[in-house]
Amino acid sequence: MKAMIITDFGGPEVFAECDWPKPQPGVTEILVRVHATSVNPVDYKIRSAGSWAGVTPPAVIGYDVAGVVEAVGAGVKRFKIGDEVFYSPLIFGGQGSYAEYHVADESIVTFKPSNLSFTEAASLPLAGCTAWDAIAFMQLGPGQTVLIHAAAGGVGSLAVQIAKASGARVLGTCRAANQPMVRSLGADVVIDYRTEDFVEAALRETEGRGVDAVYDTVGGDTLARSIQAVRPHGKLASIVDTSGDLNGAYGKNLRLYFGFMERSGEKMEILRVLAERRQLRPVIDSLMPLNQVANAHRRLEAGGVSGKIVLQIHP
Amino acid sequence: MKAMIITDFGGPEVFAECDWPKPQPGVTEILVRVHATSVNPVDYKIRSAGSWAGVTPPAVIGYDVAGVVEAVGAGVKRFKIGDEVFYSPLIFGGQGSYAEYHVADESIVTFKPSNLSFTEAASLPLAGCTAWDAIAFMQLGPGQTVLIHAAAGGVGSLAVQIAKASGARVLGTCRAANQPMVRSLGADVVIDYRTEDFVEAALRETEGRGVDAVYDTVGGDTLARSIQAVRPHGKLASIVDTSGDLNGAYGKNLRLYFGFMERSGEKMEILRVLAERRQLRPVIDSLMPLNQVANAHRRLEAGGVSGKIVLQIHP
Repeated sequence: MKAMIITDFGGPEVFAECDWPKPQPGVTEILVRVHATSVNPVDYKIRSAGSWAGVTPPAVIGYDVAGVVEAVGAGVKRFKIGDEVFYSPLIFGGQGSYAEYHVADESIVTFKPSNLSFTEAASLPLAGCTAWDAIAFMQLGPGQTVLIHAAAGGVGSLAVQIAKASGARVLGTCRAANQPMVRSLGADVVIDYRTEDFVEAALRETEGRGVDAVYDTVGGDTLARSIQAVRPHGKLASIVDTSGDLNGAYGKNLRLYFGFMERSGEKMEILRVLAERRQLRPVIDSLMPLNQVANAHRRLEAGGVSGKIVLQIHP
Repeated sequence: MKAMIITDFGGPEVFAECDWPKPQPGVTEILVRVHATSVNPVDYKIRSAGSWAGVTPPAVIGYDVAGVVEAVGAGVKRFKIGDEVFYSPLIFGGQGSYAEYHVADESIVTFKPSNLSFTEAASLPLAGCTAWDAIAFMQLGPGQTVLIHAAAGGVGSLAVQIAKASGARVLGTCRAANQPMVRSLGADVVIDYRTEDFVEAALRETEGRGVDAVYDTVGGDTLARSIQAVRPHGKLASIVDTSGDLNGAYGKNLRLYFGFMERSGEKMEILRVLAERRQLRPVIDSLMPLNQVANAHRRLEAGGVSGKIVLQIHP
C-alpha cells in the first residue's frame, strides 16, 4: 500500500511516499481502507522527536481515520466488511493513519456519523475526544461560563461547540480574522487576544467574579495567567505544556486537569451522537491530498489554522 | 480581655500584649473562652502582609481555638454555656484567636474530642481540615500509595495519619531527625529529602510505576518535580505557591488540587470522630504561653518544627 512515512525524526522534509506493507488484522482487529485522515499537533511532535511515543523511523504516523472496513479478525463482534467507521489510532504501540490502510482493535472504533462525509468525519476523532475529555472534567452546565483559549483551533473549535451544547456561556479567544467563525460555532463573546487582555475580558463578562472554567490549548504562560480569570473553586484544563508559576491557585481552591486523550469506542460513540444531533459540526480549514502532508505540517506548526487540516487518501 | 495583637504588618516584633475589647456574640454566634490556640504558616503570612485577608492592624489574628462556651446568641441551636468546643476561626472577616475570648458562628464549630486536652485539640482544626481536604481529593484507599512531602510538619503529620486511616501505603519525606516520629505516625517509608531524591525513592517503592498521589505542603519546585514521581492518571495536591513549569503533566493525565481550607462544622465533626477513634492524634512540637507568640512565629518561619506549636491562654 502507499503510505507517507517519516524516514527519520526531523522537520517536514522527513516525509516520503513509499510502498509499505499492508497491515493484517489480528483476532479482535479490523482492517480499514482509509478515506481520510487529519493532522494534529501531536503529529509534528512525534515527527520531530517521537521516541517518547515508541515510534522508530521509518514509520507511519497519523492519528485520525475515517474509512470503510475491508476485513475483520475472527473475534470481531461489532463490525463487518463494508461498515463506515471513524476513530483515532493508538499513539503508543500502533501504526499511524497516513496510509491507504490501517488496522485497529475494534474497541476504539465506532460507526461514522451518518450525516458526515469521510472528510468531515476524519477531522473529529482525536480533537473531538480531547475536547470532550476537558469539557467533561469541567462539568459545565447552564448558568456557567467557560473561557476557551484558541477557540478557532482544531480542539478549541470543537470545545466551543461541546460547551455550548452543555448549556454554558462561552468566551473564546482568537485572532480578529477568526471572530466570525468562532461566533458561528456558538461563542457568546470573542476576545481578540492580540488587542485585549483576556483576564480583563473574563472579569468584565462575569461582573468581576471570574469564569467557572478555563481551557488552555495554547501553552506557555496561558495557564498561569488564567488563574486570575477564574473564580474561586473554578477549574482549569490543559492539554499542553505550561510555563510560569501557578501562584494564587491554592488561594482560590482551583482544580486542574491535564489531559492526554485515551481512546475508546464509547468516547467515539459520544462524538457520533453529537454529530448526528448537529451539536458538533466539523470545522475544516482545508483539504489536501495525503502526499501534501509535509505542507500540512508546515501550516499547522506555523499557527493560525482554523479548525482542522484534512488529508484525503481515497476519494 | 488580654490579646496579643499585631500593631502593624511586619516581623514577629509587631506583636504586643494589650487590652482589647471582649467580643459579643451575634444571634447565631457563640462566645468562647479560649484555652489554647496554635500557630500556622498562614498566621505569619497575614502578620507580615495580611491586607489580602482583610486584616488591618491593629488586629487580633490566629486561626485555631479550643475552649469553653461562655455565652450564646439567641439563635444558637447546637451549643450551650459550658460546652467544650474546637474550631478554626474564619480568615476573612473575623477576629483571630490570639486572645482570651473569641466569637464564632456556630456553623463552623463542633464539640472538642472527649479524649483530648484543650492543648491537644487546639493543634488540630486548621491543619487537620486542610489535610482532610487534600486526602479527600485524592480518594485514597487500600492498594494505593501516596507520597507526603514534609511529613513531620503541622499539616503533613496529620495527612500521614489520615492517609493511613484510609488504607493507603504512605511514603513521607522529612529530615533524618524526624524519621522515628514520622514512622510512629504510620508512614511505611520515610525519605530523607536531604540525602535521597524523592522521585527515585517513589519509583523504587512502586516498582517504577509512580505513586497514586502526592501532597505538597512545601512549595517551590516540589510540585513540578513531583510530576515525575506520580503515575499516569495520578493526583497532585498543593496548599502552597509553586514555582517551575508543570511540563509532562498533560502527558500523564494528572489531576491537581490547590486547596485553601474552608470552614464548616461538618468538617470539624470529621476531625472529632477521627480523634475519638484514635485514627488521628495531635502532634505537638511545643507548648508556649500566648505572650510568647512572637517566638512561636520565629520558630515556625525558621522551619524544622515537628507538628504544631500550641499557645496556652487559659490553663
